[in-house]
Amino acid sequence: MNVAILGAGQLGQMLALAGIPLEIRPFFLDPQPEAPGSRVAPQLLADYTDHAALDQLARDCQVATFDFENVPVEAVNHLARRIPVYPPPRALEQSQDRLREKTLFRSLGIPTAPFQAVDSLAELEAAVSRMGLPAILKTRRLGYDGKGQAWLRDIADCAPAWHRLGGQDLIVEGVVIFRRELSLIAVRGRDGQQAFYPLVENQHADGILRLSRPATPDAALQAQAEHHGQRLLEHLDYVGVLALELFDCEHGLLANEFAPRVHNSGHWTLEGAVTSQFENHLRAILGLPLGETTTVGCCAMRNCIGNLPELGAVLAIPGAHYHGYGKIPRPGRKLGHITVTAPDAAALAARLQALDALLGDRLAPDT
Amino acid sequence: MNVAILGAGQLGQMLALAGIPLEIRPFFLDPQPEAPGSRVAPQLLADYTDHAALDQLARDCQVATFDFENVPVEAVNHLARRIPVYPPPRALEQSQDRLREKTLFRSLGIPTAPFQAVDSLAELEAAVSRMGLPAILKTRRLGYDGKGQAWLRDIADCAPAWHRLGGQDLIVEGVVIFRRELSLIAVRGRDGQQAFYPLVENQHADGILRLSRPATPDAALQAQAEHHGQRLLEHLDYVGVLALELFDCEHGLLANEFAPRVHNSGHWTLEGAVTSQFENHLRAILGLPLGETTTVGCCAMRNCIGNLPELGAVLAIPGAHYHGYGKIPRPGRKLGHITVTAPDAAALAARLQALDALLGDRLAPDT
Repeated sequence: MNVAILGAGQLGQMLALAGIPLEIRPFFLDPQPEAPGSRVAPQLLADYTDHAALDQLARDCQVATFDFENVPVEAVNHLARRIPVYPPPRALEQSQDRLREKTLFRSLGIPTAPFQAVDSLAELEAAVSRMGLPAILKTRRLGYDGKGQAWLRDIADCAPAWHRLGGQDLIVEGVVIFRRELSLIAVRGRDGQQAFYPLVENQHADGILRLSRPATPDAALQAQAEHHGQRLLEHLDYVGVLALELFDCEHGLLANEFAPRVHNSGHWTLEGAVTSQFENHLRAILGLPLGETTTVGCCAMRNCIGNLPELGAVLAIPGAHYHGYGKIPRPGRKLGHITVTAPDAAALAARLQALDALLGDRLAPDT
Repeated sequence: MNVAILGAGQLGQMLALAGIPLEIRPFFLDPQPEAPGSRVAPQLLADYTDHAALDQLARDCQVATFDFENVPVEAVNHLARRIPVYPPPRALEQSQDRLREKTLFRSLGIPTAPFQAVDSLAELEAAVSRMGLPAILKTRRLGYDGKGQAWLRDIADCAPAWHRLGGQDLIVEGVVIFRRELSLIAVRGRDGQQAFYPLVENQHADGILRLSRPATPDAALQAQAEHHGQRLLEHLDYVGVLALELFDCEHGLLANEFAPRVHNSGHWTLEGAVTSQFENHLRAILGLPLGETTTVGCCAMRNCIGNLPELGAVLAIPGAHYHGYGKIPRPGRKLGHITVTAPDAAALAARLQALDALLGDRLAPDT
């Protein structure tokens, strides 16, 4: 079975690595020379909207998927007229626009923070007055890892924020007080079968995910999250892995956004779950039975941002699993991740502390 | 770090897959077009003894290893004059000759079944008379998976066996009564650090490994096996993973043979141990700290010989992990393996039973 993957970043690479033992042959399309995935599978070097390249993929592959949510919908639609593309292009389209995404959540009864589209500085100021401060002005499209956002702490912040981000479609969102940022990694098969990993607790720094770990089990919270996830999966007639980002607030879970793909907050599943998110995504899009999503032991995942620690030092930590992406270091760039597994919580804490010391970018003391 | 791998079979492929997250770039040499490993890393298509190809590997790579024990020693020595080769060529040489291998065991105080080199039918008959029956006549070189062997159940079997195998260097070995076939997967780093996986219990059918699973822990037996393993690793100044095959007999462990490489009976470590044998082999040959060898949950591995079960049917079994090698089916050929993981022994037994039903080549009832 040949699978086309639009985007050969680290997510694509990990999909390919999960596919090879299943005798799946991955083929990448990515305009970036020597993308991470090209180390493990053939890469077609062309723009995503290059019809000749897309047609070649459609000839060579039986199914297509993508490894990032900003792949042009037009490219995916072109491909979808030729071979099945999962997740469905409609889900991709919804996720690319924060306004449509949040409106969808609202229509499905999934609570969100207050939000409103704003088309002028006056509208922004009016919205903020009604919503309260602080708030965040965001581009509706192409934002990730905290990019394309401006915090509004005072009404006077509106003008400079508008000045910086204006000229694009914008949305303003109320800031909510939350205890934790969580994510739900969900997967749905072609036959409608669904599975959910245990809720993941995420810690960010400078808008970039730093640490993810399965949250302490809480059956009610898990049920609430899965209820939201199920609404979304079914409404979108979704196929594949989907990540739903949530805020854990005093009065319940609020949905922040969803990613129609495998997700950084699910990387721990490679070592920490019976079936990884990567294998389950492939199982789903190929119409195969989904794999178990239960955890195996204790684990946590740390991103390596801007620089990679020395391999030997990492591997000296018991239970450390190193994942380098083969990318050139650049500040703020995700260059790899390290999953630490341990037989119990105390051992995990000690190992994470050793890793923190190596990474030199300590988070809050409880991590 | 670029690593040359002589042999791009399934073992080479799994080494490559383990290396990629560590940012290791594998390069294969294998005369077989489209060998399994070529799906994940570049393959130099040439004979192992092709000096130009070996020289190219030496230019491109910092260290070399091999994925099968019948790689020509001359090729490995040629490479070893240019770049470090691990495991050491001397270990390879010893393992390629059953007489030298068994003599080495004996010299290290590692018990074996009775054995003797035989150079004529008369010598064979004399040896068998002394040793007792049954016995097995074996080629000293190039035997694997039961090939190149003749069982001697009666003194009259000697002549036809000699007729069939004569003309090669031969050894006759006494048959021992054993309870179980075990193997010890051992690893030694460049700094002498050693680690041992829990003893593995193996079941063969028609001379080919069918099932491997970590044996029920037995501290005394484990210590005895590790004592033998340690003698061997240190004597050979070994670096990398080594598999020591043992018979569990009434009066202790007898060594059968060793393989200077990652081993089929260690495939379960991919899902069933903290660090896989493949990653530990790479860690060892690159001078990195060794990883933990403890088990994670319960598991067992089944080989798929001659044909592969339908992927979807396998994946419908909870905890089933499919590993296809991308090889063309042929009777008696190892085409893949399936590791089954489970939270406890009862669940594992039920899952293995479901797998047995699929594979249709049921073993003894207790498996």
